[in-house]
Amino acid sequence: MEVIDQHRSIRKYKDDPVPQEILDKILNAAIRASNTGNMQMYSIIVTTDKDIKKELSPCHFNQPMVNQAPVILTFCADINRFSKWCELRGAKPEYDNFLWFLNGMTDAILASGNAALEAETHGLGICYLGTTLYTAEKICDILELPQGVVPVTTLVVGYPDGTPELTDRLPLEGVIHKNKYREYTDQNIEDIWKEKENSEETGKLIEINGLPNLARVFTDKRYTGKDNQAFSDSYMAVLKKQGFLK
Amino acid sequence: MEVIDQHRSIRKYKDDPVPQEILDKILNAAIRASNTGNMQMYSIIVTTDKDIKKELSPCHFNQPMVNQAPVILTFCADINRFSKWCELRGAKPEYDNFLWFLNGMTDAILASGNAALEAETHGLGICYLGTTLYTAEKICDILELPQGVVPVTTLVVGYPDGTPELTDRLPLEGVIHKNKYREYTDQNIEDIWKEKENSEETGKLIEINGLPNLARVFTDKRYTGKDNQAFSDSYMAVLKKQGFLK
Repeated sequence: MEVIDQHRSIRKYKDDPVPQEILDKILNAAIRASNTGNMQMYSIIVTTDKDIKKELSPCHFNQPMVNQAPVILTFCADINRFSKWCELRGAKPEYDNFLWFLNGMTDAILASGNAALEAETHGLGICYLGTTLYTAEKICDILELPQGVVPVTTLVVGYPDGTPELTDRLPLEGVIHKNKYREYTDQNIEDIWKEKENSEETGKLIEINGLPNLARVFTDKRYTGKDNQAFSDSYMAVLKKQGFLK
Repeated sequence: MEVIDQHRSIRKYKDDPVPQEILDKILNAAIRASNTGNMQMYSIIVTTDKDIKKELSPCHFNQPMVNQAPVILTFCADINRFSKWCELRGAKPEYDNFLWFLNGMTDAILASGNAALEAETHGLGICYLGTTLYTAEKICDILELPQGVVPVTTLVVGYPDGTPELTDRLPLEGVIHKNKYREYTDQNIEDIWKEKENSEETGKLIEINGLPNLARVFTDKRYTGKDNQAFSDSYMAVLKKQGFLK
């Protein structure tokens, strides 16, 4: 599908707002996604207010696109709405556990994927903000997420200022497995990463970072063990605080 | 987008195989999805072998579509491949933690969403199997998933035998929040569920189950507290066993 083949993350946006009619199409596409038991255990926070975007910006490490892009969509796992409905009907909701975090997260992520593609068919650009997982507690505060609601990902949406190159991917055969998983040999690993490691972009990255190879750029600079552990602990704590780990 | 608007889960399939050329398009669409740091911390197990599908069937509660549909795609969070690459390059991978399960899961789910839509543009039908989370340990055994790999969702793919009705969704305004989360009042909840509760389908469901309302169908029959807790515990145990909770 062309819109899938042409996807690139957009990190620079024009000032132009997203017309309400198109925003509604994006949100309606989001809720058409498959979801667990058709229970729709997610919520989407649509932030267009400049002051609130400014508050969210540090949660996303002050990447300029958070203030630049006209729309920020924060996708949350949400057992709160469904549980409230159960209680009103004399049914006993017991969704305050890890399974329903995972179900709600799955549904929220699928909704975000639909939203992203729908946005792109209307000439908009998007970027996912993985920082959502790092600073979830602060995002809960700013967006006033109650018990039973936790953010899982964020999309910025707006009109692209420029068209970046498509990013590369590992060769398909490096990522798929026929029938069962086949463990990778050293030679498999060499073959899978060969093209990426030999690209001009990788050469520049290694030089800028003063490191011997691309793997070290990831482990020493971009996603360090210390950060990975700290963010693992903080997200687990948020799950507990928001009521998903009974 | 029409393919999004027309999505319905398909639970009955024809025998016709999926041509390799179309399967490749589906898989290539999957890997074009956004992913964390372009590190592609996921793997896709493409199961077409009838004997292995038969082994998987009980993991998905023996739903007939698992054997009927020609292709089963099991999407896994995978830190194994990337970590092996790091080790080969003298870099120290520290991705064996909860954050990278969440990143890998996000990426795997987004890849599955692209695969689903690409399949549907080619006239194929799909259905998500949430049972993947319930029986992950058994799936690890059957698909021989090594340390650092855990299944997060499954898609069955094949040519639909029939066209079911579109399923309903809660009204858009029930699922989105403007700028910040606004807590639901009892009246909000009544309004959001009104149409669903008054539908003919709901009437039938309540009658068949002999329960006083739809909420009770969910809490007493479909997703009980006892099951929710058992599957929460078993998935957390699998995450530990597969090496994601250092």
